[in-house]
Amino acid sequence: MRIIETRSAPNPRRVRIFLAEKQIAVPFEEVEIMQGELRNPEFSALNPLQRVPVLILDDGSAIAESVAICRYFEEIQPEPPLFGRGAVGRAQVEMWNRRVELGLFQAVAFVFRHLHPKMSGLELPQVSAWGEANKTKVVEMLALLDARLGEARFIAGDEFSIADITALVAVDFMRAARLRRPEGLANLERWHREVSARPSAAA
Amino acid sequence: MRIIETRSAPNPRRVRIFLAEKQIAVPFEEVEIMQGELRNPEFSALNPLQRVPVLILDDGSAIAESVAICRYFEEIQPEPPLFGRGAVGRAQVEMWNRRVELGLFQAVAFVFRHLHPKMSGLELPQVSAWGEANKTKVVEMLALLDARLGEARFIAGDEFSIADITALVAVDFMRAARLRRPEGLANLERWHREVSARPSAAA
Repeated sequence: MRIIETRSAPNPRRVRIFLAEKQIAVPFEEVEIMQGELRNPEFSALNPLQRVPVLILDDGSAIAESVAICRYFEEIQPEPPLFGRGAVGRAQVEMWNRRVELGLFQAVAFVFRHLHPKMSGLELPQVSAWGEANKTKVVEMLALLDARLGEARFIAGDEFSIADITALVAVDFMRAARLRRPEGLANLERWHREVSARPSAAA
Repeated sequence: MRIIETRSAPNPRRVRIFLAEKQIAVPFEEVEIMQGELRNPEFSALNPLQRVPVLILDDGSAIAESVAICRYFEEIQPEPPLFGRGAVGRAQVEMWNRRVELGLFQAVAFVFRHLHPKMSGLELPQVSAWGEANKTKVVEMLALLDARLGEARFIAGDEFSIADITALVAVDFMRAARLRRPEGLANLERWHREVSARPSAAA
């Protein structure tokens, strides 16, 4: 088993943090996004969407999509649960992970992809008005998360979950997207310090 | 238990089809998206993102996000499994559902939201260049799914899953987005006829 990734990209970091929380060791293999390696036929056969990370199982089959890779490891090693406990708990983690992914992570990625000069050859077409529109979405979602983190220790509730991983990676990815965290979001800052201090954050 | 929805919107249809496949009956309650009912304080307390559907549990707590609602019902009634069987099967369903949701469903939604005149007061700002860019993404993803459906009966493999539900709703939502299915995608058409003929498709 091995995982093909690009170390500097945000999605592979989600998987690395997830595995560190589970204390599962899997060998990683680097490919260079910027040098077009994802477009070669060998990689495209593993993931026709030409994205990292991809998990290669021992029989050679491939699982793409960060959350799908995390789901696989949750299934084979349920403890500690990072997708929630019980029917309601699992639904709450799914809800919050999706809110964070679709509302924050993706918005930060749109700002990066549609406004950063180095993405001009990869995001076709770059639509700068769409990048700008997402700056507002990022600020709104951070305010919503700040309110949530005023009522819960972690994003999905009392326990650390994949929703915290998605949010941490998204917040840290703001730097590459040239976005600053707004002032005054004390709950968000408290949470960010706490999750950044976990050993997994350095993975 | 009850579900708040807007019958004409695509996301609630995903939940209705899912429940029909599981043969689970839950009362539905209609709210009007277009008349601003989602912005009132009572609804915002249930879902601060002001979207449907929302599942209200018997203790009054709310689960938003279609896939989170489906996940809840998968947990309380595992048969028939619509999120896959076993670790690899569940990872494959997650992978394909995400590919379909992020690559097709969302692209169709962007076309609708950024180009349809009736969304001008709801999607702020409408970025027409982004709507246009997503027309290309829709065509590319349909071609990828057509190739996939040349090698598998259903999108995630041999069994009907939530990935088929997401894809069916996305393909049917193309009409509202004023998009036509490209000619020549025979595998996609075969699959669309088959899943549309299931009783759940009318839910």
